[in-house]
Amino acid sequence: MSPSIDANGGASARNSGRFAGVYSEVQTSRLNHSLPLPSVLKSPFKIVEGPPSSAAGNPGEIAKLFPNLFGQPSAMLVPSESALPSDQKLKIGVVLSGGQAPGGHNVISGIFDYLQNHVKGSTLYGFKGGPAGIMKCKYVELDSEFIYPYRNQGGFDMICSGRDKIETPEQFKQAEETAVKLDLDGLFVIGGDDSNTNACLLAENFRGKNMKVRVIGCPKTIDGDLKCKEVPTSFGFDTACKIYAEMIGNVMIDARSTGKYYHFVRLMGRAASHITLECALQTHPNITIIGEEVAAKKLTLKNVTDYIVDVVCKRAELGYNYGVILIPEGLIDFIPEVQHLIAELNEILAHEIVDDAGLWKKKLTNQSLQLFEFLPPAIQEQLMLERDPHGNVQVAKIETEKMLIQMVETELEKRKSEGTYKYEGHFKGQSHFFGYEGRCGLPTNFDATYCYALGFAAGALLQSGKTGLISSVGSSFHLIIFVGNLAAPVEEWTVGGTALTSLMDVERRHGKFKPVIKKAMVELDGAPFKKFASVRDEWALKNQYISPGPIQFNGPASDAVNHTLLLELGAHA
Amino acid sequence: MSPSIDANGGASARNSGRFAGVYSEVQTSRLNHSLPLPSVLKSPFKIVEGPPSSAAGNPGEIAKLFPNLFGQPSAMLVPSESALPSDQKLKIGVVLSGGQAPGGHNVISGIFDYLQNHVKGSTLYGFKGGPAGIMKCKYVELDSEFIYPYRNQGGFDMICSGRDKIETPEQFKQAEETAVKLDLDGLFVIGGDDSNTNACLLAENFRGKNMKVRVIGCPKTIDGDLKCKEVPTSFGFDTACKIYAEMIGNVMIDARSTGKYYHFVRLMGRAASHITLECALQTHPNITIIGEEVAAKKLTLKNVTDYIVDVVCKRAELGYNYGVILIPEGLIDFIPEVQHLIAELNEILAHEIVDDAGLWKKKLTNQSLQLFEFLPPAIQEQLMLERDPHGNVQVAKIETEKMLIQMVETELEKRKSEGTYKYEGHFKGQSHFFGYEGRCGLPTNFDATYCYALGFAAGALLQSGKTGLISSVGSSFHLIIFVGNLAAPVEEWTVGGTALTSLMDVERRHGKFKPVIKKAMVELDGAPFKKFASVRDEWALKNQYISPGPIQFNGPASDAVNHTLLLELGAHA
Repeated sequence: MSPSIDANGGASARNSGRFAGVYSEVQTSRLNHSLPLPSVLKSPFKIVEGPPSSAAGNPGEIAKLFPNLFGQPSAMLVPSESALPSDQKLKIGVVLSGGQAPGGHNVISGIFDYLQNHVKGSTLYGFKGGPAGIMKCKYVELDSEFIYPYRNQGGFDMICSGRDKIETPEQFKQAEETAVKLDLDGLFVIGGDDSNTNACLLAENFRGKNMKVRVIGCPKTIDGDLKCKEVPTSFGFDTACKIYAEMIGNVMIDARSTGKYYHFVRLMGRAASHITLECALQTHPNITIIGEEVAAKKLTLKNVTDYIVDVVCKRAELGYNYGVILIPEGLIDFIPEVQHLIAELNEILAHEIVDDAGLWKKKLTNQSLQLFEFLPPAIQEQLMLERDPHGNVQVAKIETEKMLIQMVETELEKRKSEGTYKYEGHFKGQSHFFGYEGRCGLPTNFDATYCYALGFAAGALLQSGKTGLISSVGSSFHLIIFVGNLAAPVEEWTVGGTALTSLMDVERRHGKFKPVIKKAMVELDGAPFKKFASVRDEWALKNQYISPGPIQFNGPASDAVNHTLLLELGAHA
Repeated sequence: MSPSIDANGGASARNSGRFAGVYSEVQTSRLNHSLPLPSVLKSPFKIVEGPPSSAAGNPGEIAKLFPNLFGQPSAMLVPSESALPSDQKLKIGVVLSGGQAPGGHNVISGIFDYLQNHVKGSTLYGFKGGPAGIMKCKYVELDSEFIYPYRNQGGFDMICSGRDKIETPEQFKQAEETAVKLDLDGLFVIGGDDSNTNACLLAENFRGKNMKVRVIGCPKTIDGDLKCKEVPTSFGFDTACKIYAEMIGNVMIDARSTGKYYHFVRLMGRAASHITLECALQTHPNITIIGEEVAAKKLTLKNVTDYIVDVVCKRAELGYNYGVILIPEGLIDFIPEVQHLIAELNEILAHEIVDDAGLWKKKLTNQSLQLFEFLPPAIQEQLMLERDPHGNVQVAKIETEKMLIQMVETELEKRKSEGTYKYEGHFKGQSHFFGYEGRCGLPTNFDATYCYALGFAAGALLQSGKTGLISSVGSSFHLIIFVGNLAAPVEEWTVGGTALTSLMDVERRHGKFKPVIKKAMVELDGAPFKKFASVRDEWALKNQYISPGPIQFNGPASDAVNHTLLLELGAHA
């Protein structure tokens, strides 16, 4: 079972899907890292159910969209005298859906080990390349030799992922055909909000057609925006934030040592600013922009620029001409005026001729024209040129951090001439974008353990005949005696499942109601933001940088949990 | 001595220069990490000297420039019956010069502890903000409480650094005044090639004026280009490369999981490509550009582009439409045709009017015009616009990785239309620049130990009356019985000093000879490059990615040494 050691001191993954890759010492050492399980999973258990569930919004519409599944209670594992019957072997598929998040391989390991321990003789198929693998029936049978090299390893490369959706009647048909062909009893969907909505639609469809295949979801996304009381966190968030925080901490010490740069760090996380907020809590930057606050206060780009410039000027008076500023990737999406400008530009570019003399600008509303003229030329260009195949601006490609640097520079020059920015030197901004570096790191001990338990939980739910649930571990919401949330020792973690329909609301698209799991945004009255808001002014002017350092797998800090989760659980001052 | 623990579980640095900062758990755990010392430093030692030294080039000129120091032998510590006399207390200054490198604080800790152990009652002054601190006599007295919070920590913020040089007669005078004012017996200069050249000039000047102050240098630079047989590596290189390699390894697994991106990673290291080469040896990317090879083979930008495109096309045939490409920051500096173009542009922009119609281009030579037209518009713009105060292009600001992505895209479209690039999808490049993240990380165990020994060695040399030497630890060049290089256990490491003049050559500037320590470039017949060259074709087409993972301070891989050093020492296959 153990990998052979090659000449470089690494270990080759034998006969594995990992392309006979060579392993680093740290990767190798993680292969045999042992994973603790919640106690309830270590001895016989049974499922107890809560009261009927509703929906996150518009329960009437959700009930119509999910006639077979709506109202399902949550399920909870509790100790039992006797084990579940294990005579019926299972055939089950698993799929990774959407962007990578550290820990995905451990969910699969957990599912596999659950089946090995509890339903011997079962078969686990890994659908390749995301939901497309289900539709095209492209799969690989996962056995212990195949899975071993991926234990506690980052990435999704065991079976790869994809962003396809199973949406049209034809696509549902393809999924049904695959289920029949492989005689599937179940399917695990590891994904974010969209993928879990899709999982629930599949579950409803299979149930509606009286097919035996059941569907269980697992909460994945580094963005941290798939969570609720019963699903306290999505996996990958912990690792990704710690990787970014390591880099931010290094940059902070660099800023303080050099004394002459403002580092503008844009962080992945398009829709919600959880990553930015968590990194701020870990590192104490001078300035942090939280998209949800910008939106709630209806701030303009000028407001954001002024906020930064105000801090830069105050710091200059204290003799600090350096600093670190965190910006969420999706900032632009949160600013109403920018949204309006982009919408108008999309219209104009689709129907008008853009003349060099700029006559086309007359088509812009006054507010949008003012904003456009306020933007640095490079950003104007990006707005005019880079469009996706549908003719829309590719917001993610706009380098917000560079845009802000230029806008801050311009405003500072103005203030310098007015005498309110007192610095003899020249303001120097350095831009960074941390994104891809964090999606495939080796999972932290927390993510490794959490994912393994999620996989076990998913296995238990499926074996118990459940469908349309999302695996839920460490929920602090279960009303039974023996409760342990994710801040408690692993042994005490609760294990269960939550009705996917209970997370849903509807959105109206093209005149039809579509079910959606609402993204969990940063809540301005939530504990993490309130903590941040209570200290940010101090961080702005005093330098209280923290450098978390590289993720450790042994010794100090190796079992630390991220601040956001701890604060949300009320376990942190 | 131990820091007080604050509410966040971190430790505040008491009364320290670290701005009463708060420490992360990992930072705190590093404070008391114990550092092994080479055996020779643990009991009484004496200094033995080698034969007279010469220079790296033009010894006649070096001898003229350093009449008092030229020819100094190397010094080596060997066990002795009796310790050096320690009755004369010393007053010593230390300065950090140039860019940050992980481990600088440990050099200072080593110097301080040496004085505490061997010359009790001595005084150590830290000059603030680099050489400017010497000239302006800005300093802080370093005591154990001041130094403690910086032990094994990254950054240079204990006393900060700066890029000033002591060059003019007035500046030398200022340095002399400071030496007299503080009654200095010695000065430690921790810096790169320029700073150590400067250290030697100071030593020569002080000696020439019969001043008692002696100067000892220490080899610092993440770029790894200050090294020779007697100074096997500069500190910081090990840590910085491991931080970059962690990120590269993560990006590789992301590339393999997603299957659709080519990641172009530009790595810090302006003059030499050691960092890029080391990261390649640690991670096995598909393509690595080494500047020194580009220069030696007189490659053009088109050649480099074609090399990348050839590999992309071959990989497409194998079904791999993703990959990872490493590029040294200084690539452009290595390409002769680009240098010519930049020189011509500098001329033109200084003296001509740049008209929109492009008539100014007629001033370019044919070759430069062709190259200019070949460049993507964004790069053309950077070349035209961004100039430093002297009117020169800021080469470091040119985003070479983005430039290459665009050039590769253009060439691939051409090949697609010719039928030699077979990929149905659209080539997607993602750009990264890893630089500032690596300069201030927590030093690896290797850098922490190496730096501490460098500091001890510097202290021993200074106490022994030496001047104009650079601290040399783990040299494999000393011809005595008890030799241990940096690949051997720390106990066996040799300790000594090397004449700075022996590392020097001269350059002619403004009609005068100026001494320089020649940067150690990547040698194409050196072991690291040869190893790389022997496997790169395999890495190009097979995916043999290695993900080193985050730096560990305990357990597996925590004591690993970088490949470049091991290969240069012949300790690695």
